[in-house]
Amino acid sequence: MLIVAERINATRKPVREALERKDENFFIQEAKKQEAAGAHFIDVNAGTEASQEIENLPWLVELIQDEVIIPLSLDSANDEALARALRVYNKKEVMINSFTAEEERIKAILPLAKDYNALVVGLAMGKGGVPQSSDDRLRLVDMLIEAVDSYKIGRDKLFVDPLVVPIGTDHSQGKVFLETVKIVKEKYDEVRTICGLSNISYGMPNRRLLNRTFLILARGYGLDASIIDPLDQELMSSIYATEVLLGYDEFCMNYLSAYRSGKLEG
Amino acid sequence: MLIVAERINATRKPVREALERKDENFFIQEAKKQEAAGAHFIDVNAGTEASQEIENLPWLVELIQDEVIIPLSLDSANDEALARALRVYNKKEVMINSFTAEEERIKAILPLAKDYNALVVGLAMGKGGVPQSSDDRLRLVDMLIEAVDSYKIGRDKLFVDPLVVPIGTDHSQGKVFLETVKIVKEKYDEVRTICGLSNISYGMPNRRLLNRTFLILARGYGLDASIIDPLDQELMSSIYATEVLLGYDEFCMNYLSAYRSGKLEG
Repeated sequence: MLIVAERINATRKPVREALERKDENFFIQEAKKQEAAGAHFIDVNAGTEASQEIENLPWLVELIQDEVIIPLSLDSANDEALARALRVYNKKEVMINSFTAEEERIKAILPLAKDYNALVVGLAMGKGGVPQSSDDRLRLVDMLIEAVDSYKIGRDKLFVDPLVVPIGTDHSQGKVFLETVKIVKEKYDEVRTICGLSNISYGMPNRRLLNRTFLILARGYGLDASIIDPLDQELMSSIYATEVLLGYDEFCMNYLSAYRSGKLEG
Repeated sequence: MLIVAERINATRKPVREALERKDENFFIQEAKKQEAAGAHFIDVNAGTEASQEIENLPWLVELIQDEVIIPLSLDSANDEALARALRVYNKKEVMINSFTAEEERIKAILPLAKDYNALVVGLAMGKGGVPQSSDDRLRLVDMLIEAVDSYKIGRDKLFVDPLVVPIGTDHSQGKVFLETVKIVKEKYDEVRTICGLSNISYGMPNRRLLNRTFLILARGYGLDASIIDPLDQELMSSIYATEVLLGYDEFCMNYLSAYRSGKLEG
């Protein structure tokens, strides 16, 4: 499974504070730790206040990109912030996180994705927010795919996020998400799926247990990638185990190597 | 998910020793603890040495049945031991664990299952042992189903065990098991599936992590029941979480009640 490391996100208070004091060392360490823990992309989110994001996103990108080998995921819905960050970005591979099935988001984000040959995350979400049913989300997924097609972006560049809704508000929402992943994978051969986890457990006790369990189930239904905290060792151990059990880890090599380096818990 | 509690099994040394000294209190406590931990059936296995099993299985059944409310699963392939145990058994529901797709096993076990209206576990295993491929196992499953049909035992009485093979010997075996569960569920509406877990992790480090993760995946593929140690609190927590996330736990009631009684871990 492709792991996008989520910790450098300005919705987190320590990140917001480090951004305010332009604490280079904080961000370098966060990036390096996440890479060492097994991430494949470092997500970089500089907040949602537009004027600050336009300054801070390129600043973070320039700072972090030379400290890690893995590529970055530029986490913004602001095309101006993204454009500036992409201009200073110097690695070959890049992910843009994210656009929605809304006309103006498509027009703002996809030309950048095309120009930079980026991987791009599309959210199954339109003007009306996140639909409750799998069918309605699949209609939005169809729109995301039409959108990348219309910009002649390869479908293999698209990661669809069917969006996780809290299980505490509606106990069918776990299954709705899982079924949506499965159908997207069956219907569109090249398209990949991705999600963040923590929303599933919102308002519930033992959130990490629910998040971890949900990721295992989702991988079983065909999920390709997830946006997670790779420093959560129990979560990472679950991923190593899942990869072995689904036959993705030939000769159990990654699992055994994680074991030998003391990374497995549980 | 239906939980069959596995601890009273004479392949475990403390059980064997307690059997030798006819330690009533040991077995009563083991049964009560497993019931309190959330089991739906208590599996009772008195070893494989025929002459002892014929004495010990009825002795265990008589001892345990009045100490717990939940029914027992009589774990033997010996029809004489089973017949004697069933004769002293006084609860309404009972499980017989197990028979295989072999003529003489079918002829020995299924008449008892029919007579006592028992649930019965059928192993996807024939004379040649456990087949490697899903197709070959499904052929044996067909034989198990033909067998219960021929004895006019309802298919809703049958639990098919597709049999777990160590992932360490062949990294495709996790997927073979999961796909077999899925196909059995799709093909035979009323037939249920069951498995033991621990074989999957044989020879690997962090076995409980692998076992737990495999059970979550298997439940996602449609597994109905499992033969496990309900005193493994991390495993039970994973089950509570899985039931919520797959929508089987309406209003998250069981999950929240497990949380309130301090049963959730992780």
